[in-house]
Amino acid sequence: MAIELEKALGQVIKRIAPFREELASEAKAHSDQLTKPTGSLGKLEEIAFRLAGISGRLWPDLSRKAVVVMAGDHGVCEEGVSAYPQEVTPQMVFNFLNGGAAVNVLARQAEADVFCVDMGVNADLDHPMLISRKVVRGTANMAKQPAMTREEALQAVMAGVQVAEELADKGYTLFATGEMGIGNTTPSAALTSVLTGLSPELSVGRGTGINEDGWRHKIEVVKRAISVNQPDASDPIDTLAKVGGAEIAGMAGFMIGAAVRGCPVVVDGFISSVAALVAVRLAEQVKPYLFASHLSQEQGHAVVLESIGLSPMIQLDMRLGEGTGAVLCFHFIDASLKLMREMATFASAGVSKE
Amino acid sequence: MAIELEKALGQVIKRIAPFREELASEAKAHSDQLTKPTGSLGKLEEIAFRLAGISGRLWPDLSRKAVVVMAGDHGVCEEGVSAYPQEVTPQMVFNFLNGGAAVNVLARQAEADVFCVDMGVNADLDHPMLISRKVVRGTANMAKQPAMTREEALQAVMAGVQVAEELADKGYTLFATGEMGIGNTTPSAALTSVLTGLSPELSVGRGTGINEDGWRHKIEVVKRAISVNQPDASDPIDTLAKVGGAEIAGMAGFMIGAAVRGCPVVVDGFISSVAALVAVRLAEQVKPYLFASHLSQEQGHAVVLESIGLSPMIQLDMRLGEGTGAVLCFHFIDASLKLMREMATFASAGVSKE
Repeated sequence: MAIELEKALGQVIKRIAPFREELASEAKAHSDQLTKPTGSLGKLEEIAFRLAGISGRLWPDLSRKAVVVMAGDHGVCEEGVSAYPQEVTPQMVFNFLNGGAAVNVLARQAEADVFCVDMGVNADLDHPMLISRKVVRGTANMAKQPAMTREEALQAVMAGVQVAEELADKGYTLFATGEMGIGNTTPSAALTSVLTGLSPELSVGRGTGINEDGWRHKIEVVKRAISVNQPDASDPIDTLAKVGGAEIAGMAGFMIGAAVRGCPVVVDGFISSVAALVAVRLAEQVKPYLFASHLSQEQGHAVVLESIGLSPMIQLDMRLGEGTGAVLCFHFIDASLKLMREMATFASAGVSKE
Repeated sequence: MAIELEKALGQVIKRIAPFREELASEAKAHSDQLTKPTGSLGKLEEIAFRLAGISGRLWPDLSRKAVVVMAGDHGVCEEGVSAYPQEVTPQMVFNFLNGGAAVNVLARQAEADVFCVDMGVNADLDHPMLISRKVVRGTANMAKQPAMTREEALQAVMAGVQVAEELADKGYTLFATGEMGIGNTTPSAALTSVLTGLSPELSVGRGTGINEDGWRHKIEVVKRAISVNQPDASDPIDTLAKVGGAEIAGMAGFMIGAAVRGCPVVVDGFISSVAALVAVRLAEQVKPYLFASHLSQEQGHAVVLESIGLSPMIQLDMRLGEGTGAVLCFHFIDASLKLMREMATFASAGVSKE
């Protein structure tokens, strides 16, 4: 069964279209005619070039936007790694579905729809708007055993692929990833340490707010999880299964699925970025489809982004997750395309060139 | 005459309302009830607290937005400090007035109006939409003599105050500052060096794009301007007159005028930030009214922001000016207020607290 899923994932990855350099160059040639010094709009120009390269169009219509919030619980919460009780995960899922969370407010501002996916919440959830793809009822405690089986990890990745394809079928063209899962900075730190070689002292952060003792304990838990499970860093699925989580696997799959459909994905903070790292390790071709959003307060985040080769657009000292940082960057994606479409050229405005 | 203007400026500054700490605390108390870990929205929370403290209201209506682009020319261009010819300043003024520049596009996205002010362009400009406050026809070459007289610098500051008051009278409640002036990173670097003590090697950047030799020459020009004019660092008007520019003085005045009317100002890049530094040196009470936007590619920018005590929200590697970075941050000002108004509380959403 795991072998079948592995094969299916391999088939999906093969469908990702390569980056079209000639379109990116065409975009740059246009940009250099606009009334501004070459390159002076910085990342707003680079975004437009990349969007051309992945979409095959000058300038794609990205007006139908969705933020996908994936939720899951974590057995490692038994070890006391979070400031919040686990019951907050399902409570926040209902908050997303009822439109009251931060990501809902920011999505309304950016004219984006919010979709919430149950990837592995440890509770029975029933709501007409919930996308249910539950792979586990909370992961196992990775400090004692693998968080998931290899098959569960693959199921979660493939479920993420399918959610992306379904939303693309509905006409969405621009995505952001977000997550909710009490305790999920702990598996994220473990994944970071395994996949980048960073020591847990540098990958473990304060999450939603633990003190110095709590932080030292969390480092110890991450070290134990790695030592107990011995994940194979060269095998992203093995690592994901042993020290990951269902929502992280789901987001990685989602990014792969979005790339298959030619849709850009704005990656949120630390946890989403760890999922992006997993996605890129599974399929390097996903990289041009990914855009980093903010640099979170979680200390491992910068290393994860560097390791993927992404640079954040905003620095608002956020540490909330949910996709809040990513959805804020929808404004910049819009800005980038609008500048390319609407700015005057040196010729049309009668402005002298350098 | 200079003495009259000095007195008038002193009277204006006295009208700035002090920051209301109790309103900021009330805003924080509300924020801490919302469904998110305390402080996890980072600067988006701090923005809301500051807006409460300066407006005296939970949550002010900042829907009427204006970007004010001040233009001026610089005699120091004689020294060959810019990659572009001086004629680009008036050409770009018409581009702003005709809606084709980058700032126009970004302002339309943010639902803001663009106003262009001629503070000291070296050309006769005639356009029904132009706000004409010309104090000089280009400054004098500061490498040889003071850029402006003390009286001209004061006139430019007071003109800026008046523009802010006129726009506040028209109902605008949120402002961004921007500028256009070929060569104006050179006086900005000189002002930075005088007012912060930073050496010209660290305050002088590449502007819109000069090479290594050009950069070394620009450093030498800034050193000469300071040595020839001996500006008094403890006297911001003296410094502004000797090594500043009309649009920089106008922006400093604009920030003071906006503060008088209780309106927040989002400060653009290096040149706007130098104007903010001048404004704060003239009147420390202006500071809570100012919000930094982006960290530009100009190397002196970070030091100027630190010196004022501001921290940028975005890092898009921009170096265009015009107010482009500031107007992008209007989305975040809107986001901050919208979150405070619309997010569910722990009680209303039935979410457990820490």
